[in-house]
Order: sequence, then C-alpha cells, then structure tokens
Amino acid sequence: MSNEWFEEIAPGGDLIMKWKTSKHLFSKKSPFQQVDIYETTGYGKLLAHDHVVMATEKDEFIYHDMITHVPLFTHPNPKNVLIIGGGDGGTAREVLRHKSVQHVDMVEIDPVVLDAAREWLPQTSCEFNNPKLKLHVADGVDFVKKATMKYDVCIVDSSDPIGPATPLFNIDFYRDVFNCLTDDGIVVSQCESPYYHNEMQKTMLGILSQLFPKTHLYGYTNLSYPGGYWGFSFASKKLCPFADFDAKRTEGWDFQYYHAGLQFGAFQIPSFLKKLYAEYLTPLPQIGVKK
Amino acid sequence: MSNEWFEEIAPGGDLIMKWKTSKHLFSKKSPFQQVDIYETTGYGKLLAHDHVVMATEKDEFIYHDMITHVPLFTHPNPKNVLIIGGGDGGTAREVLRHKSVQHVDMVEIDPVVLDAAREWLPQTSCEFNNPKLKLHVADGVDFVKKATMKYDVCIVDSSDPIGPATPLFNIDFYRDVFNCLTDDGIVVSQCESPYYHNEMQKTMLGILSQLFPKTHLYGYTNLSYPGGYWGFSFASKKLCPFADFDAKRTEGWDFQYYHAGLQFGAFQIPSFLKKLYAEYLTPLPQIGVKK
Repeated sequence: MSNEWFEEIAPGGDLIMKWKTSKHLFSKKSPFQQVDIYETTGYGKLLAHDHVVMATEKDEFIYHDMITHVPLFTHPNPKNVLIIGGGDGGTAREVLRHKSVQHVDMVEIDPVVLDAAREWLPQTSCEFNNPKLKLHVADGVDFVKKATMKYDVCIVDSSDPIGPATPLFNIDFYRDVFNCLTDDGIVVSQCESPYYHNEMQKTMLGILSQLFPKTHLYGYTNLSYPGGYWGFSFASKKLCPFADFDAKRTEGWDFQYYHAGLQFGAFQIPSFLKKLYAEYLTPLPQIGVKK
Repeated sequence: MSNEWFEEIAPGGDLIMKWKTSKHLFSKKSPFQQVDIYETTGYGKLLAHDHVVMATEKDEFIYHDMITHVPLFTHPNPKNVLIIGGGDGGTAREVLRHKSVQHVDMVEIDPVVLDAAREWLPQTSCEFNNPKLKLHVADGVDFVKKATMKYDVCIVDSSDPIGPATPLFNIDFYRDVFNCLTDDGIVVSQCESPYYHNEMQKTMLGILSQLFPKTHLYGYTNLSYPGGYWGFSFASKKLCPFADFDAKRTEGWDFQYYHAGLQFGAFQIPSFLKKLYAEYLTPLPQIGVKK
C-alpha cells in the first residue's frame, strides 16, 4: 500500500490536520464508533475514533502523564482508582506505576477499542494483564451509578462529547462520581480545547463546581490535537493540587513529561481563560520561588 | 474567489496543516522570501513566509505576550529594547505597553513584510508610528555588529533558520548581541519546536550557554505552529526570571495570555527536554506555593 493521508477536520471545519500513513492496520465499526489504527510515517501508530485522533505513539506520553500524575500526586495515598474510558490503556499504565495503588477498575464501553489496543498498541495496553487492574467492558454511566466501592481518584479519560462519550459530560454522571469517591476523593476529566470548546468547558466546570468544593482546570499540550493546548478539569472534595502536593514523592521517578514543577505550572492557564471561567474556578494559591 | 486551502507541511513532511481561506489578500516575492497574507475562515488573517505560517490574528497574542512580557518583567526597569525581526509588529506592540520603555529599535530585514503588515495587519502593526519606536529596514546581523547603544532587553523574533533568518541562529550573531546588551541585559529568541527541532534547540542553547552566565528555555503553545508546543530561549547576563521577578509589577495589567503565574509556569518544560538539554540549561529555583 502506498502512502495515504489520514485527515482530521478540526472543530469548526476551518483547519484540517493530515497525517501521512503507511498502513491501515485496523478498521472496525463497533456499535459505538468507527475504530481505526494506522501506521503513520512520523508519529508511530495512530488510534482514531470516528476519524478523530485519540492518540499517537509519539505523543501519548504527554496526555497520559498529565491526566494521571497530577491527581495521583495530589492525593497523599491513592489506593483505589477508577478509570472511565481510557481504552488504549495508557492511563492505566501510568496509574499502576504508583506503588500505593492496590486496585484499579477500568471501565471501557467499547470492546473493539480494547481488542484493537491489545493487538496493535502494546505501548499503551502493556498493563492490561496486571493483576491489580480489573477491566470492565461496561457503560461508565451505569458503573458509577451502581458502584459500591469508594475510590480515591477517578479519571474520566473519554473521547469528545459526540458519540459514546456524550453522557460523560453530564451532571447526573458527576453526581454519581462524587458519590463513589472517598471523602478526600478527586476526579480529573478530559476537558477538550480552550480554543474550540469554550461552551463545553464552561458547562463542565459549571457542573463540577456545583458538586465539588474545589474546581480547577489545568492544561497540557500535544502534537495531535488541533490547537495544541487542551485541558483537564480537576474537581476535589478536599485536597488542593498545590497545598496538598508533596514534591518529595516525585523524587526517584523517571518521567517523560511530568515533574514536580509542572504540577504547579500546568494550572497556570492563560489570562483569557481565568477570566472566562472565573465564576467556576476555585482560586489557587499564588506560586513563586519555594522558600 | 471560492474557498481554497493554505497548506503548511510540518517539518519532516509527515503532517500537513491546512487552513481554509476566503481571500488571498497579499502576495509578493521579496529578495528574501515569499510573503503572503490570507483571509482565513476561522483564524482571521494569516501571515506566511515561504509558505510557513508566521502568525494568525486569532492566536498571535500568545506568541507576542510570551516573547515580550517574560523578559520585560524580569528586567526591573527596561528602558531600551532591541527587536530583531518581528516584522508584523506584534512584539513592538507589547514592548511599548511597558511604561519604563523609552526607546525601541526594531530591525526588520524585509521591507515587504513591513509593508504587508502596515496594510493588512493593523492588529499587530498598530504601533508602527509610535514615536518611541524606530523602524530600521536592515540586516539584524549587521545592526548588532555596528550598534553603539546598549539595550536592556533584546528580542530575536525571527522566522525559522531557513531563508533570511539563518544567520540569526549563529554564535557570531549572539556574541554581538551580548556586546550590545547592558550589564544586566537579557536576550530572548524564537527557538523552534522541541518535537521537530531538537538539534537546532541544542545548538542554540549551546551557543547561548557559552556566552551568557544564565541560559533557559521556556515554552508556549499556539494554534498555528505544528506540534502545538514551541520554545523561546532566555539568556541573561545577571537576572533570573524567577528570583528577579516581582509579581507586583504585573498588577493592574490586562493581559490576554500572560500573567505572573505563567512567568514561573512557562519555564516548567517537560522532563524529556530538561534531560535532553541538561548540559546547557542553568538550574532554576524550585517553585511552589508562595509563602
């Protein structure tokens, strides 16, 4: 097969990103979405849901470091972790690096994504057989409604709010998430782009701030999402990502992306966002040189 | 004219970014480069040199805030500022917001860029007639060689090191920049992408660390440069962007992007970059909650 191009149309339709591919490795229409994996010429394997890039092998470390280590280093002793979505496995891989973690429930609605990841994306799915990880092929909305276990950290590693992830951007879902968290629990969620999804970000932060005493937004930047800069929401019953963060716990870790300075740096969202979401965001302590 | 697409091939050739345009407003081949301005459907006017996006009206505030305010708020009293390049005028616009600034020399090699900006990009070129600004249509390399004035801050707002900007990525140039800076002078330079230009970044940081006591790299992220996350080098004779930064000076400013927290946040480059450039980067104080 000669080179072909995988095209993603950015929200709004005014920008297109095209990756050169050398092979179409996997293609299947599940009951939930179209799932594809391509071998690209410059970015390793590329996973797409409904023709939107979810991850590439070249840059997935950014997303997975930042969605995971920020909440897991805020919580002083995360033992039980719930992952909603995250079918490629990268979030579970990073969660399981934390020695305190005893049990992870990962709830992926689409078995086709899990099969594709298992076969074609060992870089992210490498911990699928870890005995601490329980994979559930189930609807995350149902799972949190019925959950009896209490989690220290919940990570909502979902795709965009079109298709199967839509109910995950909803107050009913987050009420159930709140209820299945411990008294010092944290939920971090994929929260789209501040350039393309202001209304969605506003809705999400509005929902979270109704339920949780602390609501924040932090940023990360990767190669494969249009606009470069994307966000994670951070909602917490008690713990503050700055005041309760102990940088010493990060010592001895070999990170590709995250480090203690980024725990503070990632929450320094641009001025226009601080203004736009001011009514929902909990003020954070000012940062500076550590005395 | 119906919609057409402006295509930029990312370095390496494995990714293409395409902007939908409604009008080709300006096109001229100067002795230095091909200069184009398009009206896009989603990003305002787009300036391209040799078919590479320099800026769009929608996201130029990010680049111009970050290249300007980081050094100008590090220096306690910047009076004289030198801009090399920066033909669209956005850097001069932000520099001139600093009340301490008395004189700005802006040295742009290509008069076609200045003419195009003056005619089509008032958003960035709005300060071209400011009496504190002196525009020089000249080669930046020659200008710094012959300069007799001493500058507090020099900003090298150049295009990529292909075409006319190539000599700006060179030790001879930076030796002359060093010599035309005051004893507490700072030079900040456009320093490409950590994903596409590691060798170039290494060369630049290597050059700067040979000449300056302090060398740092800080990041920003915009919509129109491939890979999302790009860098500015920060080299300084004496001042530290953390220890010498007084957050109080930023109070009362209305920024679109920059704020005091980002002064610290932007230097929190990813772990893999800290490792890759460790031999060139001056360690910065650890950041944390301000006591």
